[in-house]
Amino acid sequence: MTDLIIKNATIVTADRAGTVLTGGVAVEDGRITHLGEVPDRAQEVVDARGGIVMPGLVNTHCHAADSLFRGLVENLPLEPWLQTVWKAERAILTAATCRLGARLGFAELLLSGCTSVVDMFWHPHSTARAGAELGLRVSCGGLFFDFPGMDGKTVDTRLPDAEAFFADHPRTDRLRPGTFPHGAYTVGPENLKIAKKLADDHDALFSTHAAETTVEQQTVQDSYGASVIRHMEALGILDARTILAHCVHCDDEEIAILARSGAVVAHNPVSNLKLASGFARIPDMLEAGVHVTLGTDGAISGNDIDMWLALRLAATLHKAASGRADVITTREALHMATLAGAEAMGLGTVTGSLEIGKAADLVVLDTSAPHAVPIFDPLTHIVYSAGRADVRHVFVDGQWRVRDRALTVFDMTETLDEIRALVPAIKESIA
Amino acid sequence: MTDLIIKNATIVTADRAGTVLTGGVAVEDGRITHLGEVPDRAQEVVDARGGIVMPGLVNTHCHAADSLFRGLVENLPLEPWLQTVWKAERAILTAATCRLGARLGFAELLLSGCTSVVDMFWHPHSTARAGAELGLRVSCGGLFFDFPGMDGKTVDTRLPDAEAFFADHPRTDRLRPGTFPHGAYTVGPENLKIAKKLADDHDALFSTHAAETTVEQQTVQDSYGASVIRHMEALGILDARTILAHCVHCDDEEIAILARSGAVVAHNPVSNLKLASGFARIPDMLEAGVHVTLGTDGAISGNDIDMWLALRLAATLHKAASGRADVITTREALHMATLAGAEAMGLGTVTGSLEIGKAADLVVLDTSAPHAVPIFDPLTHIVYSAGRADVRHVFVDGQWRVRDRALTVFDMTETLDEIRALVPAIKESIA
Repeated sequence: MTDLIIKNATIVTADRAGTVLTGGVAVEDGRITHLGEVPDRAQEVVDARGGIVMPGLVNTHCHAADSLFRGLVENLPLEPWLQTVWKAERAILTAATCRLGARLGFAELLLSGCTSVVDMFWHPHSTARAGAELGLRVSCGGLFFDFPGMDGKTVDTRLPDAEAFFADHPRTDRLRPGTFPHGAYTVGPENLKIAKKLADDHDALFSTHAAETTVEQQTVQDSYGASVIRHMEALGILDARTILAHCVHCDDEEIAILARSGAVVAHNPVSNLKLASGFARIPDMLEAGVHVTLGTDGAISGNDIDMWLALRLAATLHKAASGRADVITTREALHMATLAGAEAMGLGTVTGSLEIGKAADLVVLDTSAPHAVPIFDPLTHIVYSAGRADVRHVFVDGQWRVRDRALTVFDMTETLDEIRALVPAIKESIA
Repeated sequence: MTDLIIKNATIVTADRAGTVLTGGVAVEDGRITHLGEVPDRAQEVVDARGGIVMPGLVNTHCHAADSLFRGLVENLPLEPWLQTVWKAERAILTAATCRLGARLGFAELLLSGCTSVVDMFWHPHSTARAGAELGLRVSCGGLFFDFPGMDGKTVDTRLPDAEAFFADHPRTDRLRPGTFPHGAYTVGPENLKIAKKLADDHDALFSTHAAETTVEQQTVQDSYGASVIRHMEALGILDARTILAHCVHCDDEEIAILARSGAVVAHNPVSNLKLASGFARIPDMLEAGVHVTLGTDGAISGNDIDMWLALRLAATLHKAASGRADVITTREALHMATLAGAEAMGLGTVTGSLEIGKAADLVVLDTSAPHAVPIFDPLTHIVYSAGRADVRHVFVDGQWRVRDRALTVFDMTETLDEIRALVPAIKESIA
């Protein structure tokens, strides 16, 4: 018998054809069995009340546990900002606090309808545990960093730690282990190659920061005689299992390199604004055939991790930056936030769109608020008017995660109290 | 006896000194009597549950009734976009539909904690009525437009209609009548001066679009041999009771003119992005001493009318556009969205900040969601992390408007149904 039916909905599948249906979604054993017309009966029937059912959002660049430091450091560009952030991180981060922080970030993501996330952070074992506790899809793994790390470790332990992460975390559709070197300005060429090789050996994701600021571009140019993307291409670390976060400062040839290598760009418009990094050339990338996905970055730079804000900015910012109101269609923007992200995570057959046989990672959007009236096109509503608070229900693998805007899977009360109790120590750490 | 006490709060007053208090707010006869320490008893005591109490937001540029066409026309720059929008407006707008649309817009504003709005639209009598029904502070009045208008009227009726609006609407703290010429490219010099004189005769607000696009700048330059702001200065229509919406394309001298004239700029970052208008030079304006306020513009260009999004973009967009992460402080951004707007509306002694003797236009923000944990600085939270859905309660003049995220003042059910019933005709109008 069908386990779950969500009825009375407009269904935005976010599939390649842009299919929109009316009716319901049926789920059995965690997978979608029907879209549109659904069986009459199921173990559980949920009334979408005329709202929108859509796939869970996919966030390809996050530092969930950095939510511990949300709003701590303001009004600084990336480099001095990082120096202060790292002071706080070094003082506060342990496996235990990272787990609290990852729970905080993942709770925020689930409540806002994000069901899959690529997360780069210290103590990735804690990230993986929090991901299992909250029940969303996570890709995480060993960080690489050539300087003493905020986890109290040194460069010598990075490779064995990253190997241990793979050993401890067999690949599943819920957890995708990978390797996460911080960036070309903090990880030398040999270690970048080592991190990429380890990922390749496990057929796994490799993700790093790239070309976020002009200072970074200059540093890498000065150190290695090539710009960031050229440097990475020369190292042989760019392919379809590579996610590069940011790529704000890329020239035409670097965009061409991204396109022909198949490397994925994780666009983070919120933090790019806040840190004054600039405007990534997303329309040019899309035109060149680059695989562009969407990320929130961490709450320490963006102040929250809200895929809806990222989605709306991805769709509007580049219109103003290019002076062309017709760049980035609603289809393109939604694709970045869903299927493109799932494919980048290696989960393209699992999630990112509503299709028969795929996992039932579902968001039920409330469309009763004034800002949802009228709706001429549900995609337009999703991209330009909807927001995190419209997310009424969330399912992963057909299982409840958020019901009537409350987490069903994990009681956050104690975690939130523990985090609030850290505030004096965090303030002290940068005093 | 005290009518209302809101207790257990962090109070962000948004006053000039940036005062933040803990404790409560007491209200008698609609006015604030205590801030911080409050009396023990009152007719009604509301527990803010540790949340933030702040002034209602002030939106200095809106077309509330354009919410009828939310998301109807997408991916076009201003000029061709306006041609399509105007087709729909011409077909649909009547005094009755404008009233429905204004209710829709004002409901959205109140639910998101915006309690004062400058609204420019056809059939301003309908705007005023909807404002009274919903119970927020509105400035509106006769439009001036040299071409046949979307209200079916011609240029000949603009002055008598605008005069009639003043006659019918005595100035109160809830309704501030004014004059609203559309812009220098749609209203000739004489009519701009006539509109300004009428406003001045009533000691009233005068608001118009200005320097929104390069095409507009070129059109005005070609027609009158001067750029928009120079043209307006030469006409003598710039002073402290003038609100200019947008001012995206201004050179240094135009910014100097804005500063020395005392004219107010209503910055609308959301529609400036969506319509590819560009990035207003807000940091330069602030540095030059221009009075900058914040607006949402209409939902037809921005897709919703969310002061929180405008606030967040005002604080972040210009960091990226200028490459300087230290421009626009949280104080400056919050000031734009509150007291600066109230002053621009001539309501600086009435609303826009929490001060003893001022009207109790209050927002109670919920800070229990994960994205509100931790809070190191309540201003940072307001500007960078909070959103419309965090608005739990709203009061105007100490009276309930929104309670537990629901409008208390007006039942929108019928209005929303009537608007949904207009959808086929609206689609037909641009087919």
